[in-house]
Amino acid sequence: MPSGKILVAQGGGPTAVINQSLVGVVLEARRHSQVRQIYGARHGVRGIVEEDFVDLTQETAANLERVAATPSSALGSTRDKPDVAYCQAIFKVLQAHEIEYFFYIGGNDSSDTVRIVSEEAHKAGYPLRCVHIPKTIDNDLVGNDHTPGFPSAARFVAQAFAGANLDNAALPGVYVGVVMGRHAGFLTAAAAMGKKFPDDGPHLIYLPERIFVLEAFLADVKAVYARHGRCVIAVSEGIHDAAGTAIVNLLAKDVERDAHGNVQLSGNGALADLLCDEIKAKLNIKRVRGDTFGYLQRSFHGCVSDVDQREAREVGEKAVQFAFSAKRDGSVAIQRTGNYAVDYALLPLDAVAGKTRVMEDEFISDSGTDVTDAFRRYLAPLLGSGMPDAARLRHNPVAKVIGDKKGL
Amino acid sequence: MPSGKILVAQGGGPTAVINQSLVGVVLEARRHSQVRQIYGARHGVRGIVEEDFVDLTQETAANLERVAATPSSALGSTRDKPDVAYCQAIFKVLQAHEIEYFFYIGGNDSSDTVRIVSEEAHKAGYPLRCVHIPKTIDNDLVGNDHTPGFPSAARFVAQAFAGANLDNAALPGVYVGVVMGRHAGFLTAAAAMGKKFPDDGPHLIYLPERIFVLEAFLADVKAVYARHGRCVIAVSEGIHDAAGTAIVNLLAKDVERDAHGNVQLSGNGALADLLCDEIKAKLNIKRVRGDTFGYLQRSFHGCVSDVDQREAREVGEKAVQFAFSAKRDGSVAIQRTGNYAVDYALLPLDAVAGKTRVMEDEFISDSGTDVTDAFRRYLAPLLGSGMPDAARLRHNPVAKVIGDKKGL
Repeated sequence: MPSGKILVAQGGGPTAVINQSLVGVVLEARRHSQVRQIYGARHGVRGIVEEDFVDLTQETAANLERVAATPSSALGSTRDKPDVAYCQAIFKVLQAHEIEYFFYIGGNDSSDTVRIVSEEAHKAGYPLRCVHIPKTIDNDLVGNDHTPGFPSAARFVAQAFAGANLDNAALPGVYVGVVMGRHAGFLTAAAAMGKKFPDDGPHLIYLPERIFVLEAFLADVKAVYARHGRCVIAVSEGIHDAAGTAIVNLLAKDVERDAHGNVQLSGNGALADLLCDEIKAKLNIKRVRGDTFGYLQRSFHGCVSDVDQREAREVGEKAVQFAFSAKRDGSVAIQRTGNYAVDYALLPLDAVAGKTRVMEDEFISDSGTDVTDAFRRYLAPLLGSGMPDAARLRHNPVAKVIGDKKGL
Repeated sequence: MPSGKILVAQGGGPTAVINQSLVGVVLEARRHSQVRQIYGARHGVRGIVEEDFVDLTQETAANLERVAATPSSALGSTRDKPDVAYCQAIFKVLQAHEIEYFFYIGGNDSSDTVRIVSEEAHKAGYPLRCVHIPKTIDNDLVGNDHTPGFPSAARFVAQAFAGANLDNAALPGVYVGVVMGRHAGFLTAAAAMGKKFPDDGPHLIYLPERIFVLEAFLADVKAVYARHGRCVIAVSEGIHDAAGTAIVNLLAKDVERDAHGNVQLSGNGALADLLCDEIKAKLNIKRVRGDTFGYLQRSFHGCVSDVDQREAREVGEKAVQFAFSAKRDGSVAIQRTGNYAVDYALLPLDAVAGKTRVMEDEFISDSGTDVTDAFRRYLAPLLGSGMPDAARLRHNPVAKVIGDKKGL
């Protein structure tokens, strides 16, 4: 007899809306009579192998709704990237607890974990339904129009650059803002969404999809500064030279690598500082400032897209519906059906797992340092309602009285 | 015959609400029949000596309201700190344009400029009414309960740490967030306002009002990490050792100074990176991340306190009322009259000009690394309505089945 037991977990970097997906799973599962217990694993796959489970059947609907509106991963997350042995340990625990349905909310690495666990269960002839639920601020999952978490982070980046542009207009100089995104430039490109007037920044956008050449960068900055007397620049943390070497590594002495073997690009201000130093030294511009948006762009409490909230809830809800109806494992994907409307599909796990989407060429301008209108049309509806607007005083100059005879 | 001409300007670092004060001056001035023209100087005192004026009499009320809701300084700002010769040049231009009323929105340095210009006019026997309107995210003006701009920046810092705490709870480690504030720790202390549960971060807060000792810092972090398995730290950019040397200077090779002779503490990530390196090296903790909030905390478009908006409008409005009624120069100050209510006073310019308020001892805990309840009561009403809340899943653990026999 089936156990009616569900397990849900959250993996990878937290987002503003990942708890919506968790709560989507729990509340939808509660509607199905065959579900008897809903477990949550604490800290992702790490909590599974350690049998660190909480009983979400004992949680109230009111508190679930409040958790859904709270950013970060309420169950805790992990950076563990399981290999086959690790996945076998996961499977052993799932078996011991008679889990029938396994839902894992995460990015590329998490989808790959779900794929391996699914294979292990299949090999063992154990009836386990595995569904991956998409989440990543990088927007780099293939097969998805976009991924939950990205719109809210994009909104943060757009609002940050809208404000940085206004600040830079008041106190002119060069401003460099470094944005997360190792391989995919979507989040950095979102900086363009705060532009309103033709001379607004960001004036230059550097994406990991294009090779970064320091000399070209300096020439670009010089030209913008000559034209506007100021320059606002959006830079992806993942920019690299033609050999694929990360620009930040030109500066960094001690390169930290995470458990996935990736270079540690976030959590320090090295790239922004390096670029600012180059601009000061080579272009002789005095006021040059750099910010690294860091963890704020995924964790800031109070900047969220309502469209993102809604869709993050829906992918969790749809994951349960697919698990009960589709009779196969897979990864839930968002597909755009109208402007603006979406539907959800269940893709085969190996169509998504471990693959990386980058910005399509049609989204990047020919100059390589701006986005296209196609990108703006793509992203605008995702940012949600209530995006702040910026107004300027109209220019009504007063005639000089002293003119050239002035005292200073 | 009086000219009926008003001049208004904005100086120093922009804030989320400084345009409210500008619009407060303009709209209130329009109500007075003796006002015939309202000029705005572009880029503060720099625009005055360069006679770079715009005619705000030609601006619509609708656009003024939209500008008021836009962060940063709509007229432009400046970092120029005028000496007596510069102030004489200012006065010469004001005379040439027959300005009767001069309003300057800014911090300590701006109030000092107003004081000198006021003295020059007095010496020359020219009937000029000079009023300083308070503004600074540092909250360091004496004679004020608080200053416009600070509550919105404090709200950003509180929301940022509320989110960083949730992120750090999901992926445990050490997180260092560096906050603006050269001498006054108010903005850094605002990090505490996002705390809800006893184990929430920030667990440690380092203020410029207390001497920073690296060894004590490392011992504090070690103790918190041992207790909670994680540690969230708020650090003021202005922390210094017993000799008064800024901690960031222990790292920085090239110290940049601004026009006021101050060391450049903002606009780079050096301090956060230095502290993270120390923690990694000395405490052997692997996951250590640092963010420097930088310009986001004063410029982010879409994080504002409605109380701050209202009061920033009122100080501009009151400045005009005082100018017409009080028959003396001065600096508008916010004074708390209830919980929560304020009134406004016109202080003598020399009571405010060039002076710096720091956090009162009653606001800092005996440990020196936390704030007191008195500070929380002080700041809470300023943050405005709609502060985001954070919810947790309640802990309902599931019994282990495999237990110590687990696979990994």
